[in-house]
Amino acid sequence: MKKQKRFILSENEMPTQWYNIQADMPTKPMPPIHPQTREPLSAEDLSHIFAAECAKHELDQQHRWWNIPEPVLEKYRYYRSTPLVRAYALEQALGTPAHIYFKNESVNPLGSHKINSALPQCYYCKEEGTTNVTTETGAGQWGAALSYAAKIFGLECAVYQVKISMQQKPYRSSIMRTFGAAVTGSPSMSTRAGKDIITKDPNHPGSLGTAISEAIELATTTPHCKYTLGSVLNHVALHQTIIGLEAEKQMQMAGEYPDVVIACFGGGSNFGGIAFPFMRHNFSGERHTEFIAAEPESCPKLTRGKFCYDFGDTAGYTPLLPMFTLGHNFKPANIHAGGLRYHGAGVIISQLIKDGFMHGVDIPQLESFDAGMLFAQTEGIIPAPESNHAIAATIREALKCKQTGEEKVILFNLSGHGLIDMTAYDQFINGDLMNFAVTDEQIEAQLKTIV
Amino acid sequence: MKKQKRFILSENEMPTQWYNIQADMPTKPMPPIHPQTREPLSAEDLSHIFAAECAKHELDQQHRWWNIPEPVLEKYRYYRSTPLVRAYALEQALGTPAHIYFKNESVNPLGSHKINSALPQCYYCKEEGTTNVTTETGAGQWGAALSYAAKIFGLECAVYQVKISMQQKPYRSSIMRTFGAAVTGSPSMSTRAGKDIITKDPNHPGSLGTAISEAIELATTTPHCKYTLGSVLNHVALHQTIIGLEAEKQMQMAGEYPDVVIACFGGGSNFGGIAFPFMRHNFSGERHTEFIAAEPESCPKLTRGKFCYDFGDTAGYTPLLPMFTLGHNFKPANIHAGGLRYHGAGVIISQLIKDGFMHGVDIPQLESFDAGMLFAQTEGIIPAPESNHAIAATIREALKCKQTGEEKVILFNLSGHGLIDMTAYDQFINGDLMNFAVTDEQIEAQLKTIV
Repeated sequence: MKKQKRFILSENEMPTQWYNIQADMPTKPMPPIHPQTREPLSAEDLSHIFAAECAKHELDQQHRWWNIPEPVLEKYRYYRSTPLVRAYALEQALGTPAHIYFKNESVNPLGSHKINSALPQCYYCKEEGTTNVTTETGAGQWGAALSYAAKIFGLECAVYQVKISMQQKPYRSSIMRTFGAAVTGSPSMSTRAGKDIITKDPNHPGSLGTAISEAIELATTTPHCKYTLGSVLNHVALHQTIIGLEAEKQMQMAGEYPDVVIACFGGGSNFGGIAFPFMRHNFSGERHTEFIAAEPESCPKLTRGKFCYDFGDTAGYTPLLPMFTLGHNFKPANIHAGGLRYHGAGVIISQLIKDGFMHGVDIPQLESFDAGMLFAQTEGIIPAPESNHAIAATIREALKCKQTGEEKVILFNLSGHGLIDMTAYDQFINGDLMNFAVTDEQIEAQLKTIV
Repeated sequence: MKKQKRFILSENEMPTQWYNIQADMPTKPMPPIHPQTREPLSAEDLSHIFAAECAKHELDQQHRWWNIPEPVLEKYRYYRSTPLVRAYALEQALGTPAHIYFKNESVNPLGSHKINSALPQCYYCKEEGTTNVTTETGAGQWGAALSYAAKIFGLECAVYQVKISMQQKPYRSSIMRTFGAAVTGSPSMSTRAGKDIITKDPNHPGSLGTAISEAIELATTTPHCKYTLGSVLNHVALHQTIIGLEAEKQMQMAGEYPDVVIACFGGGSNFGGIAFPFMRHNFSGERHTEFIAAEPESCPKLTRGKFCYDFGDTAGYTPLLPMFTLGHNFKPANIHAGGLRYHGAGVIISQLIKDGFMHGVDIPQLESFDAGMLFAQTEGIIPAPESNHAIAATIREALKCKQTGEEKVILFNLSGHGLIDMTAYDQFINGDLMNFAVTDEQIEAQLKTIV
């Protein structure tokens, strides 16, 4: 019998609302607070930096569903639904009885899930009279997505790209320029924050923290300019729930429900995107799905970080956020999964971990590339180095099933493809990559710097 | 009213046969002939180089339909059907009343249509006891597709990549290596043909012609090794008709039928793939669709070449083929559309042009990138430099409609994405690209060298 491989929703089956997990969380996240006054911040406070509508999404704990604006839905229909795919070939290679599914966000324009939030953020900015948007980007996936979204909604776009990622993935800067964006390596001499960082450490490879500082400085010193963020924040995860809401319908088409949901973890946007819609059935007690966030061994905030208020950026421009963090000065190793080199976890995720609804696992760099190679050679898609962490965690679970004989249903999010990360694969194939474990002493030293 | 953007077939709606246009052609193509004996070649002759089943496909003029083997169908279902997309945003940017559709082959594994023929070729080789496959590749799209197909069907794979393309697109070699292929730049010192070429011209940038010579030499001097080709030949176009057969069903879903079908043109595989299934309704007189093959101005075999018997490769290892050609020693300019730098057109296409069923248009390099930039900024997909030629031809037709007010339905094939060709876009944005027209004298001189 022919086994169905891919599940795709028709346009009229597509979700028309995003899911706001905050409305259902048993313990609500604590608020962001002002670093000086230590007062909780309001949506109005946040709207000085972000689009007002996004600021509203950020703090809302009442509304379970937010309508996706029609102009955003129209652009979603350019590429969504993305396929839900049964990874038969991977299962066979592993010899596992597990059923492995992946949501293929790699076929999105620009090659990753990031576009799902770039579109609404730019749409709201445009609606509110903003003319310029700015942002940071690590591997460049977010910057590329924002550049395209800005172009189609008629906004100017300036991107600060983490310097080391810019060197590792020069094509991503070219992609951003193809959409008309101005791209600057961070830390740069174009902002006060950048100058301070370079002065202290001329060889600083950059991090999401440094790039965020520079982008926020540009936004707050430029008229009609708003800052946008591709991860970490609640409203970004909200927009990304389109992934999980589609996947839920598609799993129904497949006649299954996931026992385990896995995604890689940088700030939490692709994880929240696929996990939150399924997690609501855990809150209600109806389901008992396990949720696993796969972080790199070199940046282990979920498994070895501390839950406390910390800054989102290196310079301390952001509000203080209650999160699992390695300290905002944590300088991660130069692994190729640039999108996972962030010191903190999103506020919602941090609370969910604290409450035991999900957990993190650490993946060494070499294990992640082993997983990516196997996935490529079986399923034909070369994954982003970030996504390789989700695949590695999936393989671990599938091999457990092989031992126990359990036919678990595992769903992971393939957040993006790695066609622009071939330097990394080259180095892996040539044996030039290594693992970067972090010592307890290094973590202790960083955690001490948290205010 | 919500306008549908994408049309996707469910797995049970997918075509299960390929369409063999030779069965319906009013004038059958002339046979390939042996260069020495000048005798027509049989399928058995060809099977010394190619898989026997492919050799049979190549010469068959009887069977309108060939069943797609189930193991190939299974792998097609990993990514097919590809979406048929209505390019509303491009239409709007052009202000054209035309309805523009594109078949999005860029979402295939490895980013282009090439996989559609790589899978059956490797499947047949495996079935027939072959252990090694070899091939040439220009831009690297074919080599990447073959590397993956060889891996999943358990074959060793050796690829000769055109030297200039290898330098322009280093990531494509990495992709092939990720799938375990051995990659060599052509011309190389590893074959007699390569040595001869380098001896005459040490700076030879390589061409599909040189790489084919080397791959054929390797295949014919290695036991259990077959040669495979990604374009030009009839059986390759046969396999690619999956594109047009899907598109035909998808156009029905959209309630339209194309007045114009457009594809870029290197050897003819993506053109034949999308065009042939529609063209059969022209043969029957039922439809009067216009078919346009978009070739680069720098390699104008369709519009300025000569119809005659010529070699498929530089060294003269292949049979003589009846085709529009610029001469097998034609050395095309180093444009970025590496896949379009081939001196001849496929045998079927050549006959169809001769008989007036289709025609070519020449696209200058700068016009092709202008078109690609507009497409990226409207539809969100950065096209391969090859595909940009199809988009440029589409834009020409759409602008004609703007002048005449005609609501023509235009369908083009987006044969691949350009995410690995960002160097080309970078150079275009920086103003470092140029056009390469060919003079009549240059063409005359080359045509004289044809035997």
